Amino acid sequence: MQINSDTAILLAHCKDAKGILHAVTDFVLSNNGNIIKLDEHVDEDESHFFMRVQWDLSEFNIPKDKIGEYFNTLIGQKYDMTWDLHLSSSKPRVALFVSKYPHCIYDLLSRYESGEWNIEIPIIISNHEKFAGLAERFGILFHHIPITKETKLEQEQKEIALIKEHNIDLVVLARYMQILSSQMTEAFPMKIINIHHSSLPAFAGANPYKAAFKRGVKFMGATAHYVTEDLDEGPIIAQDIYPISHRDSISDMKRKGRDIEKIVLAKAVWAHLNHTVLIYKNRTVIFD
Amino acid sequence: MQINSDTAILLAHCKDAKGILHAVTDFVLSNNGNIIKLDEHVDEDESHFFMRVQWDLSEFNIPKDKIGEYFNTLIGQKYDMTWDLHLSSSKPRVALFVSKYPHCIYDLLSRYESGEWNIEIPIIISNHEKFAGLAERFGILFHHIPITKETKLEQEQKEIALIKEHNIDLVVLARYMQILSSQMTEAFPMKIINIHHSSLPAFAGANPYKAAFKRGVKFMGATAHYVTEDLDEGPIIAQDIYPISHRDSISDMKRKGRDIEKIVLAKAVWAHLNHTVLIYKNRTVIFD
Amino acid sequence: MQINSDTAILLAHCKDAKGILHAVTDFVLSNNGNIIKLDEHVDEDESHFFMRVQWDLSEFNIPKDKIGEYFNTLIGQKYDMTWDLHLSSSKPRVALFVSKYPHCIYDLLSRYESGEWNIEIPIIISNHEKFAGLAERFGILFHHIPITKETKLEQEQKEIALIKEHNIDLVVLARYMQILSSQMTEAFPMKIINIHHSSLPAFAGANPYKAAFKRGVKFMGATAHYVTEDLDEGPIIAQDIYPISHRDSISDMKRKGRDIEKIVLAKAVWAHLNHTVLIYKNRTVIFD
Amino acid sequence: MQINSDTAILLAHCKDAKGILHAVTDFVLSNNGNIIKLDEHVDEDESHFFMRVQWDLSEFNIPKDKIGEYFNTLIGQKYDMTWDLHLSSSKPRVALFVSKYPHCIYDLLSRYESGEWNIEIPIIISNHEKFAGLAERFGILFHHIPITKETKLEQEQKEIALIKEHNIDLVVLARYMQILSSQMTEAFPMKIINIHHSSLPAFAGANPYKAAFKRGVKFMGATAHYVTEDLDEGPIIAQDIYPISHRDSISDMKRKGRDIEKIVLAKAVWAHLNHTVLIYKNRTVIFD
Repeated sequence: MQINSDTAILLAHCKDAKGILHAVTDFVLSNNGNIIKLDEHVDEDESHFFMRVQWDLSEFNIPKDKIGEYFNTLIGQKYDMTWDLHLSSSKPRVALFVSKYPHCIYDLLSRYESGEWNIEIPIIISNHEKFAGLAERFGILFHHIPITKETKLEQEQKEIALIKEHNIDLVVLARYMQILSSQMTEAFPMKIINIHHSSLPAFAGANPYKAAFKRGVKFMGATAHYVTEDLDEGPIIAQDIYPISHRDSISDMKRKGRDIEKIVLAKAVWAHLNHTVLIYKNRTVIFD
Repeated sequence: MQINSDTAILLAHCKDAKGILHAVTDFVLSNNGNIIKLDEHVDEDESHFFMRVQWDLSEFNIPKDKIGEYFNTLIGQKYDMTWDLHLSSSKPRVALFVSKYPHCIYDLLSRYESGEWNIEIPIIISNHEKFAGLAERFGILFHHIPITKETKLEQEQKEIALIKEHNIDLVVLARYMQILSSQMTEAFPMKIINIHHSSLPAFAGANPYKAAFKRGVKFMGATAHYVTEDLDEGPIIAQDIYPISHRDSISDMKRKGRDIEKIVLAKAVWAHLNHTVLIYKNRTVIFD
Repeated sequence: MQINSDTAILLAHCKDAKGILHAVTDFVLSNNGNIIKLDEHVDEDESHFFMRVQWDLSEFNIPKDKIGEYFNTLIGQKYDMTWDLHLSSSKPRVALFVSKYPHCIYDLLSRYESGEWNIEIPIIISNHEKFAGLAERFGILFHHIPITKETKLEQEQKEIALIKEHNIDLVVLARYMQILSSQMTEAFPMKIINIHHSSLPAFAGANPYKAAFKRGVKFMGATAHYVTEDLDEGPIIAQDIYPISHRDSISDMKRKGRDIEKIVLAKAVWAHLNHTVLIYKNRTVIFD
Repeated sequence: MQINSDTAILLAHCKDAKGILHAVTDFVLSNNGNIIKLDEHVDEDESHFFMRVQWDLSEFNIPKDKIGEYFNTLIGQKYDMTWDLHLSSSKPRVALFVSKYPHCIYDLLSRYESGEWNIEIPIIISNHEKFAGLAERFGILFHHIPITKETKLEQEQKEIALIKEHNIDLVVLARYMQILSSQMTEAFPMKIINIHHSSLPAFAGANPYKAAFKRGVKFMGATAHYVTEDLDEGPIIAQDIYPISHRDSISDMKRKGRDIEKIVLAKAVWAHLNHTVLIYKNRTVIFD
């Protein structure tokens, strides 16, 4: 994480209008904030304004717990903004959901343990027992919550309770082979990231490799997206693709796919945890 | 074209069996042919065998007009092969279909005129008059054949007649904004190549840029494929993709898409004209 | 070109300091300019600030011919800025230099003639006569200026005179196989774009394909850069790469390279003509 | 590993001549071997022939320990071949060398432990103590062998002894920040794979990120290669690249580079362990 000093990050978007950027920078500068990074984007097709501004709080005049209130009163209301304020002082808390595929969970745990990412992973939840030992070795609580068609809603309630209990900021589905019900997606909107093993919208749903083989495509990919009620339809955070040819069997695709999936998932998690993602109309603006 | 000497190219596929490759190389070698290039592929998921072999005919014992017959008698029938024989002596004859977008037709004509491709382009057919002058400047016959819903079948008959009259080996739809009827696709199976401005199967049909923008994908692409009765469903010959972000408006996608489309289309045409493409179950094997 | 209305584009960079962005946006807004597009970048490794701002001039209070003076007085001097102001009213004038390879010049002329680019190409200069007919067909003056080791300096004087006479904004070396002397590069600093057929700094100098083949690399590329006195060392504007394998002969690389070269060159020319390129310490910032 | 049945893999290359492929397939078929996979390549620029053939040994007439001898007598000598025979029955044994960067070693160990790769990793050797605990957790012997300029030759002798003692088939330098002396590279020719954090030959040597930043390139990459006496000059096995822009600081490059490095290194190790790599004149032919 780049978030190592005492900074504020503001993500905001609204209908485009003259002078928004000026107003926001004025808010920061006139209160003695030092802008570290500023990105803005105007979607010309939609006439919509997006911005991310990060500033140093060390000499900022407004107390931390009042910044949101002041910003909303002085700027947000005026432009009818949707906004979000993040302080860099707290470590993000992440929960991992996994089934039986090891590549994504190993990759995430490696980044975690090796210090590549400065986060907390207090719990791993799985519908199988396979990774209980792995979790233990990394010192993470493991909850085995098996799911059947009949027990899904009930079991998800346990998961929701655990997520709340552990103050989880982000749920990562690291090849978790279960479709979440709407009670789950609605409980944590834009707080659950999934990795799908195709370049969406191509080959949504089950068995993308087999479908891709059958269609004879020359590229395959992976897509990390926020989970919404509509399967594989949530806002896309990151994608990557890789070339394939007639020489690639379905088994080759699976092998190559694993490497792309874990990297794309990690890229999306990184983007989310760094507060670089804005969402508007089921699309993302990512200030990387 | 690499085809500059007197060679034969055999494309063949059949159910995999012991000794096929050996039998075919034996056929060439025992008749005093010198193998220039040999590619084979076994689709393990389908247990199907594919090969392309090109050999020098200068000392080959079997007369040119008998090679096919002999091959079929000695090898083809035995393995129940689907095969195709091409002699490098003849220049491929290509017809271009175009509507109003210039990028693909300019690119193809540039390759033609500059000598990059050793082919003949005797005719350009268009439903608009826009490129009549361009065709004239390149010394190519231009046929303006306007199409309406009502006249399509009738007007296509004219096109079919022209294609036959000019002994066309390949029809290239260079952003020809018309859907071909089945009378056309059936008249020239695997002889018509189209370029679609997305990475199929994503965003098939009309307006892929708009659909891609709406879905918020991070990659767009282009696909060259053989035209079959099913729109955008024919065997894929070539694809390429390019990254996009929130910074890309629909207009940016169009601009970037043009560059990919013309290159992907040219790549597919090159592959076809060099007899490197085999088709099996609506997929291609491309020996490049 | 996107430049279709009456706008001003300001490119500026300077040492990073508090409030620069605010000062520039204030300059535009307080004089009744409407910002169409704003990009800024802070190079944190160098602590250097870059920006590009484009605004509508229709109601701007400062007369066009005074904008630069006012900006410099009010803002530029204060921050010790390096800046450049462009008005969208004038059509860029481009000269093409070419030797014997057709792919880049055909591609550029296609974009020109088909209306993809709204520019003027008044002259083509070549050390060979090969493309005289092509120039004529596109209605462009063709100057055959042969170059030998002995005549280079003298002949370049003619070229310099032609460039000045025709008020050329940008010289494009479309695979012009001559090394420019320093009198030429100094006469038009950051006004000459070259395309090199490798991914610089790999395989600078002559025969990159052969060198790449010999080194056994798995990727090749192309690089468009401004021409400076140091061969292949000028600021890089655009690059792209393509995978190669043992299956690619030098001749295959040449074929694949052509497609990348022409696209990368066009991308760089487009970026330059849209005033999206800033140069600092032999590097480019490109606001695309 | 795909090597799960009782098969032989023959890698061979020689000067191209008529009938080689035929002779080899005849050797396999006439002795009742069933060819599972066959790849051949003719380097036309060098007129050199390469092949890889894998066949089922279950009904093969020649005893396993005699296959090499018979092949050499009947085929190898005749064509003056360089060849290598591998039997799929034995598990490859890999040693890891590492310094202080975690990403590659974590990735390799994850593939090992999760069963993605069916190999043995008996030892990890490092010039630092940092990963002693990690090795222990994965049940692997850890040898801390610190290196100074003065002790290098002596300490390498210990490493060479360990590699021999543990019957190591492949040494992987997983970001091992030491230059190997020629005694080491000569002891294990084409048995040591290194990962370099640039797209060689660009930015060979130390600090490629810094050099790339300074040169202002638009792409960076990673290269896995066999280690030879000449630093960063050995045969390239795998490369990959990623786009960068002015927005990427050196720190961003490091972050993005990590993900590419570990994937490229793994790809090279996989290719080597599956016996798909042939080496000729410091280049690789990879039959993937």
